[in-house]
Amino acid sequence: MELMEMGKAAAAVKYALACMPEEEKNRALLAAADALMQDMDLILQANEKDVRDGEAKGMHPGLVDRLRLTPERVEAMAEGLRQVSSLPDPVGEVLDSFVRPNGLKIEKRRVPLGVIGIIYESRPNVTADAFGLCFKSGNACILKGGSDALSSNLAITNSLRASLEKCGICPDAVQLIADTDRVVTEQFMRMNGYVDVLIPRGGAGLIRTVVEHSTVPVIETGTGNCHIYVDEFADLAKAIPIILNAKTQRIGVCNACESLVIHEAVRERFLPALAQTLREKNVELRGDERALEAVPGMTAATEEDFGTEYLDYILSIKTVDSLEEAISHINRYSTGHSDAILTEDTERAERFLNEVDSACVYANASTRFTDGFEFGFGAEIGISTQKLHARGPMGLKELTSYKYVIRGNGQIRK
Amino acid sequence: MELMEMGKAAAAVKYALACMPEEEKNRALLAAADALMQDMDLILQANEKDVRDGEAKGMHPGLVDRLRLTPERVEAMAEGLRQVSSLPDPVGEVLDSFVRPNGLKIEKRRVPLGVIGIIYESRPNVTADAFGLCFKSGNACILKGGSDALSSNLAITNSLRASLEKCGICPDAVQLIADTDRVVTEQFMRMNGYVDVLIPRGGAGLIRTVVEHSTVPVIETGTGNCHIYVDEFADLAKAIPIILNAKTQRIGVCNACESLVIHEAVRERFLPALAQTLREKNVELRGDERALEAVPGMTAATEEDFGTEYLDYILSIKTVDSLEEAISHINRYSTGHSDAILTEDTERAERFLNEVDSACVYANASTRFTDGFEFGFGAEIGISTQKLHARGPMGLKELTSYKYVIRGNGQIRK
Repeated sequence: MELMEMGKAAAAVKYALACMPEEEKNRALLAAADALMQDMDLILQANEKDVRDGEAKGMHPGLVDRLRLTPERVEAMAEGLRQVSSLPDPVGEVLDSFVRPNGLKIEKRRVPLGVIGIIYESRPNVTADAFGLCFKSGNACILKGGSDALSSNLAITNSLRASLEKCGICPDAVQLIADTDRVVTEQFMRMNGYVDVLIPRGGAGLIRTVVEHSTVPVIETGTGNCHIYVDEFADLAKAIPIILNAKTQRIGVCNACESLVIHEAVRERFLPALAQTLREKNVELRGDERALEAVPGMTAATEEDFGTEYLDYILSIKTVDSLEEAISHINRYSTGHSDAILTEDTERAERFLNEVDSACVYANASTRFTDGFEFGFGAEIGISTQKLHARGPMGLKELTSYKYVIRGNGQIRK
Repeated sequence: MELMEMGKAAAAVKYALACMPEEEKNRALLAAADALMQDMDLILQANEKDVRDGEAKGMHPGLVDRLRLTPERVEAMAEGLRQVSSLPDPVGEVLDSFVRPNGLKIEKRRVPLGVIGIIYESRPNVTADAFGLCFKSGNACILKGGSDALSSNLAITNSLRASLEKCGICPDAVQLIADTDRVVTEQFMRMNGYVDVLIPRGGAGLIRTVVEHSTVPVIETGTGNCHIYVDEFADLAKAIPIILNAKTQRIGVCNACESLVIHEAVRERFLPALAQTLREKNVELRGDERALEAVPGMTAATEEDFGTEYLDYILSIKTVDSLEEAISHINRYSTGHSDAILTEDTERAERFLNEVDSACVYANASTRFTDGFEFGFGAEIGISTQKLHARGPMGLKELTSYKYVIRGNGQIRK
């Protein structure tokens, strides 16, 4: 379907979605989950084609793994839709209400954003996840997945659309852009008036491209050059498990720790023990001059290292002489995702929490907790690293806007 | 100063502003108000130069009037700063806090956006107003006013900066881009990493340009093609004063009514009386075929009329056969600013309020109330017509973001 037609179709369905009762949305989500299970064979066959094509093109095995669906992964998509159905509906919540001296009753009410565009890369499960979150929050969505996953995404979308139709809901609540031409993607980013917000999900390159080319408002997500600062007054026994967890529990994720900042006063005591533990996990350390002094044989860090989100078994190390220097180093190199201080000094912790300008700031915990599920939101569409609209993990509420509803009895302005 | 240097200076001051106690901000705002009064002569002289240059260039008298400062207008700027000093400080407000099962204490705390860029047109009072709102909400601002007002804006900014310095505050909390080269403005719109949000204030052309060229997140403000729908069950005696107010109380503003939608059932009874009242105020009516039937001599409306924000003594009129048709006409042509229904039927009012997708939806009141002061916010930086971040009148709270502050005692992710 031509892109502009898809935009019109989404605009046409968004009013019905905005007013749809919660029970109807939940029924449709449960039906969609069942449909995915019933269409499992079709989805797996379509995915097998994508995987074969990817392998034939010499796709990196890591990417092939992301692309591949299994019965368990399809089941997880269905389970995701069921979970979203059980979350409270954010739409309609009265955020504020007040009466003006002239008698006007003003109500600030939560409403859907309208039409959400999502641009993502190779994981086909995003197709079902994004639909579930957008639909439950009363939004229509237009999806643009990676071309490598096109067959899989089409099979999933067809299953979802057929299921909506059976429920008596216009299937244009979820649409997939099947044209993989770059020009179409660029046009998609400029559909002001049809698309209310674009959310890119993927690597730094994709996000940069969307920010650069989009005229539709964008929520930047997901790049995380996350720091842990080991303060002079850190409990060093607690520090090692936290750093180990933040660095190695899962390496390819945005809330993994990429850089360690260490106070000079504990450098010599702490670094050798940390280095030993991390080397057992095959983590390469890249340190500044003083870190190298404490741990001979470490690679020397370049300026570039401090600005790099490795998503790999690598950790950069920077030595500082003060809390102030740690904060300013982090504010300079962080992507504003998640940064932590380890200290037993409450006053210093509070200063760090106040002054580090990131979406999530931690005292004495792993950065790996920046996640919609870990925060108890029950779902997550991504982690915003911008300050406009939403910051940090975004759940259903973050997919809404608000409107002012004003009731009068003939008021005019003086 | 070179633009990138200004960006760095703003970034350097934003941390201090974010943590500045309310009393210190209020003292500085009061001092800035006094400084404007003390520098009145300098400001008026600078403005006189802008006005002379404008007139010599043959500037439209309406624009010259917007540009011109008088002692009263300078006093109003000072008074504006005093008023902002008396408003509650939004920064630091705890929006939510909860403890997770693993013991992590998560607090969602209101913080400034950081650095706000404002691009505006000929009114020099925006310089002081924008500074006041940004400063009180803990933000640094970089201002780009119209080239026609450059001398005035420089004089105002110099006064504000000198006053900040006397208070011991880094003057880079407010900076003015003095280079009027278009290339500099384009560079300003792409200062990601230095500017957190851009707010254009001005006409539709300016806003379109900023949306088109900016890679920094933008809050769209101010274009208002506002509708009033006179329902079949409207109290027609109430309707005339409301429409008169919304159309003529002030014509050049975004919340003025530009289009009337009328139900067929009351068309013949209502339009002649309305036409007479509006013509006494020199309002030109442009109607569809059925409106013309009811009021002979009316101009015929074109398709373009229904999409036009006149900001003038003109009103378009569209006849509809149902509430549903009214809603879909408004959702098609409205800019999503402010739209009203006049009806005594509560159920029909609620349906309109639910289904019209605008920032402010009214039942039985003038659209002219869409305003930060009328809403009781005590201040206004603009009226957002987008759904991301803020919608409708934006006061101090809308110039903030939030961060998650997480306190643990050694938690790691399982």
